[in-house]
Amino acid sequence: MKYQREQQNLRIPGPVPCPPEVIDAQTRPLIDHRSEEFAHMLKSIVRRLKRIFLTENDVFILTSSGTGALEASLVNTLSPGDKILAVVTGFFGQRYSDMAKALLIDVQELQFEWGRDVDIEILRKTLVAHPDIKAVLVTHNETSTGVTNDLESISRVVKKEFGKLLLVDAVSSLGSVELKTDEWECDVVVAGSQKGLLTPPGLAVISFSESAWCAYEKCCMPKYYNDLGLFRTFMALGQTAFTPAISLLYALDKALELILSEGLVSFIDMQREQAFMIRSKVRLLGMELLAEDRCASHSVTAVKVPKNVDADDLVDLLREEFGIVVGRGQGRLKGKLFRVGHIGKVPEQEIQDLVVGLSSALTRVISK
Amino acid sequence: MKYQREQQNLRIPGPVPCPPEVIDAQTRPLIDHRSEEFAHMLKSIVRRLKRIFLTENDVFILTSSGTGALEASLVNTLSPGDKILAVVTGFFGQRYSDMAKALLIDVQELQFEWGRDVDIEILRKTLVAHPDIKAVLVTHNETSTGVTNDLESISRVVKKEFGKLLLVDAVSSLGSVELKTDEWECDVVVAGSQKGLLTPPGLAVISFSESAWCAYEKCCMPKYYNDLGLFRTFMALGQTAFTPAISLLYALDKALELILSEGLVSFIDMQREQAFMIRSKVRLLGMELLAEDRCASHSVTAVKVPKNVDADDLVDLLREEFGIVVGRGQGRLKGKLFRVGHIGKVPEQEIQDLVVGLSSALTRVISK
Repeated sequence: MKYQREQQNLRIPGPVPCPPEVIDAQTRPLIDHRSEEFAHMLKSIVRRLKRIFLTENDVFILTSSGTGALEASLVNTLSPGDKILAVVTGFFGQRYSDMAKALLIDVQELQFEWGRDVDIEILRKTLVAHPDIKAVLVTHNETSTGVTNDLESISRVVKKEFGKLLLVDAVSSLGSVELKTDEWECDVVVAGSQKGLLTPPGLAVISFSESAWCAYEKCCMPKYYNDLGLFRTFMALGQTAFTPAISLLYALDKALELILSEGLVSFIDMQREQAFMIRSKVRLLGMELLAEDRCASHSVTAVKVPKNVDADDLVDLLREEFGIVVGRGQGRLKGKLFRVGHIGKVPEQEIQDLVVGLSSALTRVISK
Repeated sequence: MKYQREQQNLRIPGPVPCPPEVIDAQTRPLIDHRSEEFAHMLKSIVRRLKRIFLTENDVFILTSSGTGALEASLVNTLSPGDKILAVVTGFFGQRYSDMAKALLIDVQELQFEWGRDVDIEILRKTLVAHPDIKAVLVTHNETSTGVTNDLESISRVVKKEFGKLLLVDAVSSLGSVELKTDEWECDVVVAGSQKGLLTPPGLAVISFSESAWCAYEKCCMPKYYNDLGLFRTFMALGQTAFTPAISLLYALDKALELILSEGLVSFIDMQREQAFMIRSKVRLLGMELLAEDRCASHSVTAVKVPKNVDADDLVDLLREEFGIVVGRGQGRLKGKLFRVGHIGKVPEQEIQDLVVGLSSALTRVISK
């Protein structure tokens, strides 16, 4: 699989550079989204997505950012006033929680230090203390800290021990980090097109279990555009409820073909090895990583900067002088770290350029 | 302006064939949506969109179908239980009304026969009879019937006489049919990328007046992804609240450049003349149009079929034998008519092919 060579070395956690075939697929002539031809493509994309989610649950494609599908995970299972537990390990976990509050859901937050993963024992105690909780929100891979939470263990507690609905933000994990939707009994799993699915941004995907459908039948959150009941009705006809982003579907179709022809397991293994290499190279420069190795993400690495350095200065310098675009720290981590995205295959030359650029930029920022 | 030549002659009311430069723009390398470069592009697109909307109101771009932005028009101005008037002249007017009901808004419907436009006197009487109405929903151009409602006169009643909030579905009119947002005092105007903006589907645009912001401050509909308050905060930084469909923004940027370099007025004039020509050619085949000339849409023409003909048979034949894709009748009009979309410049050869195809197909369907 080859990747689009950018003028910039785009190393943010998303959007990620896409394979050139994926980019080019966007230029296919537009077709009628109520045609047989479209239905054939949509069904094929959904079949392939299920092989990425590792699920037999329903899978739907939304014309929206990942955030739109996160909202769909809530409005299709919960009602205003329902009590839920939001497990927060960083900026995006907090945002998922804030979204639930904006939707008038009664949110109990379980906060962990940003940079740490979920402590399973504390999660268990919290669920014991709050028996009225209906659902648990978890961020699988916390993009702001470069931490992957142990979703398998979390699920064992949430599902097997307590039988709660499990809603998973997998925006930066699906396709990039191991995620077994059915084996781990995840009721709702949400991802965006622009990360592990190697597609330009603008589409989101969501898997929805039988238990989630039971919750759907009972819930009364006002909704229309995100109403998965409408999606299900139209999907039976091989259609989307509303005019879809057809050119992005062409791109997603091509990206899924590439990923599955390489094999999901080897695609994820490759990214794991690549992440090990990037982390070790960054450490060799004398920089510390935010996450412990045990829970370090294979899709994004958060790198701490020396105390007297503003990480944003480093980010600016990398961009201006070296054409390398990395992510800034978010929320309370702003200025304290930068984030290197490495979803998909990163060409060796780009990794080398990154290390050289980082080394030079760091020296210059420190001596400034 | 040249247009993408499809293998199919795509003559549905949307998505519309896009100029090749617009299609190609999607392949530009993806960039960081939190960068200066992105901010520059976003601000430029919004400036140009204001020249299409003819407004100084806020304009935002949503990563969603037009339907998502229609939902935004409701959740940002209304609360559950608020009473509104939904003016329905066809399938899409009904859908806008149904959406409001799904959002638990108290909807008073004003129904007109499908194929007719809004009767201003009846609208006035309805507003007199229901003084507790907060907002009025209007479909500017009803895609299902090929009727353009007289928005200027409607606004005069709704705004000048009654001072209600005016929410306009302009999905199939903006860029294609005259629409003066500020002069006609439209509070909220919604459109999709895939029609008069000559861009692939996946983006929606919305204009939002000062009065709409006043309603926003008071309303309490649960929302997050569509919360225009978040959009406003991020727009001040030249950003979108959530990861946007970057490649579609590239396309929209290019399409706006093409439309404005031709001039909005002459672009719309051209479509008006083209619509006249298409209507007269269809009539020469002995077919009747659903809409009266007085209110006939310049973006889509609904054509009635002889009584003993199933319009869907004609649509199938046109597609299979002639490679011409037209729209079917929707809702209660299913099987009774077909719809020819003619947004943007339709190449003369395609119009000729359409007329020849229609003539042959009609003969064959009748003699079947």
